[in-house]
Amino acid sequence: MPHLQSSGLRRAVPHTWVDGSAADAVPADDRGLNYADGAFETLHCNAGMLACPDLHEARLASALERLEFDGPQALAKQSFEEMKKLLAEVAHSGVVRCTVTRGSGPRGYEPSAASVPRRIIAAQGFPVIADRPLHCGVAQVRWAHQPQLAGLKLLTRTEQVLAAGEARQKGWDDSLMQDHRGHVVSSSRANLFIFQNGRFFTPNLEVCGIAGTRRQLLLDHVLPRLGYRCSTQDLTLADVLKADVVMLTNTLIGVASIGSIADRVLDRKAAAQLLRPLRAALSECVSERSPS
Amino acid sequence: MPHLQSSGLRRAVPHTWVDGSAADAVPADDRGLNYADGAFETLHCNAGMLACPDLHEARLASALERLEFDGPQALAKQSFEEMKKLLAEVAHSGVVRCTVTRGSGPRGYEPSAASVPRRIIAAQGFPVIADRPLHCGVAQVRWAHQPQLAGLKLLTRTEQVLAAGEARQKGWDDSLMQDHRGHVVSSSRANLFIFQNGRFFTPNLEVCGIAGTRRQLLLDHVLPRLGYRCSTQDLTLADVLKADVVMLTNTLIGVASIGSIADRVLDRKAAAQLLRPLRAALSECVSERSPS
Repeated sequence: MPHLQSSGLRRAVPHTWVDGSAADAVPADDRGLNYADGAFETLHCNAGMLACPDLHEARLASALERLEFDGPQALAKQSFEEMKKLLAEVAHSGVVRCTVTRGSGPRGYEPSAASVPRRIIAAQGFPVIADRPLHCGVAQVRWAHQPQLAGLKLLTRTEQVLAAGEARQKGWDDSLMQDHRGHVVSSSRANLFIFQNGRFFTPNLEVCGIAGTRRQLLLDHVLPRLGYRCSTQDLTLADVLKADVVMLTNTLIGVASIGSIADRVLDRKAAAQLLRPLRAALSECVSERSPS
Repeated sequence: MPHLQSSGLRRAVPHTWVDGSAADAVPADDRGLNYADGAFETLHCNAGMLACPDLHEARLASALERLEFDGPQALAKQSFEEMKKLLAEVAHSGVVRCTVTRGSGPRGYEPSAASVPRRIIAAQGFPVIADRPLHCGVAQVRWAHQPQLAGLKLLTRTEQVLAAGEARQKGWDDSLMQDHRGHVVSSSRANLFIFQNGRFFTPNLEVCGIAGTRRQLLLDHVLPRLGYRCSTQDLTLADVLKADVVMLTNTLIGVASIGSIADRVLDRKAAAQLLRPLRAALSECVSERSPS
């Protein structure tokens, strides 16, 4: 295998593959690096088996389609088949990130017709996730208003990077992120649900945000199965601050409750009572949708 | 020098350096690749000497500061000093791109305090630029509304990639890009000026767009020197379509006129008459601000 020259050595992550082969670098002319021209998925993997691969593959295909990659469905399928094979070979348990970029290309924004998309798979250990209500602040940075790309998990994650960095600096577990109208859209790394007067509400993601796979499972399966109604609508910060329970969802945390938002302390007992059956139902739902 | 393994071989660009050393790859855990966590500048270089390095260095420093990199001014200065030295050594004539990313880091949006920023310098030949009025269309994609990051040249360039891709598909030289209110902000790769009733107008970039170095020179020096007034304000597509002359500016093209926008054909003679002294004055202004 040819080697690309790169300066500097770095601690290897447990497993990284580029276009199906073990590798820990990408060419410097990759358009994912130079123009954020690509998309990714972060998945949960257990003994080589991905959780909810179909949901992630569908979202990746949507992103590649919106980015006008050739054959987005087939490319997402190929990426996932390759990822499944590689993860099964090493019986990986942990997190997996699957990135698809436009590949190498000449300088300039215009995608080259000759570019071949690049697939980067990085398998790492599970993060340590505190099993306690989270303390969140409200991020200074707001989501860009971009209805044409909303919901997708593109490589362009600047707002979330800034929100996560602010959370670290201020000692928060995470930060709530608003759009420019003052509607709460998400946290820096998770979708948001509030529980108020016996029903759930989650922000609509029509102008910004990422449509999470666990959010989708809650909306389509988990909440209906438990007999809850959930509305997708605009939520102001005031709506969130007065909620009975506030929850975050993503691939890695599943469902977690928020214990406090800035000075507002939420009812931990109510959250714990609500969380228990939700977590069990989500876990069951994920298992049903994952090969074993 | 240690080598990083990467799969696939690619045609080498004339010169690429990573952190000051010749290299053609970056580690796969680079945050520029994974989260678009970084910024860049594209410059003109003649016999190893950069054009207007101060303007570019200042804009890079602004971007790094907004991204909360440690010591953004010093980092931009270091990047530019290194770039100047490397380009002088090879007496480069052509385009240069200077990219600064957050460097390698663990998975997750949160920037690691341990990450060391990475500097990537890619020197390439001059692009072939047609010396004729451009034929432009109007892009389907619109700029995201993001006043907190407007004007900066971050790695997140998805809208421009889509607009440039549409232009190629439709046989346009470039495409005009609007924001979500229908105001024209730029083309896919350049800033825009219109000339109407004896004065210039250029879009304000308060909610989106990139504040170009040549735009800045035109506003601050070139137009005043030639006795023109220029207003920075919102411009609708109708404003642009009824203008006497429409021009684009960037580092590589300098000033170019638009010959047609979709079905609207502009007055080429008026454009040529206006363009000649503007180009000469911009060229002189660039020379004054560039070492020789």
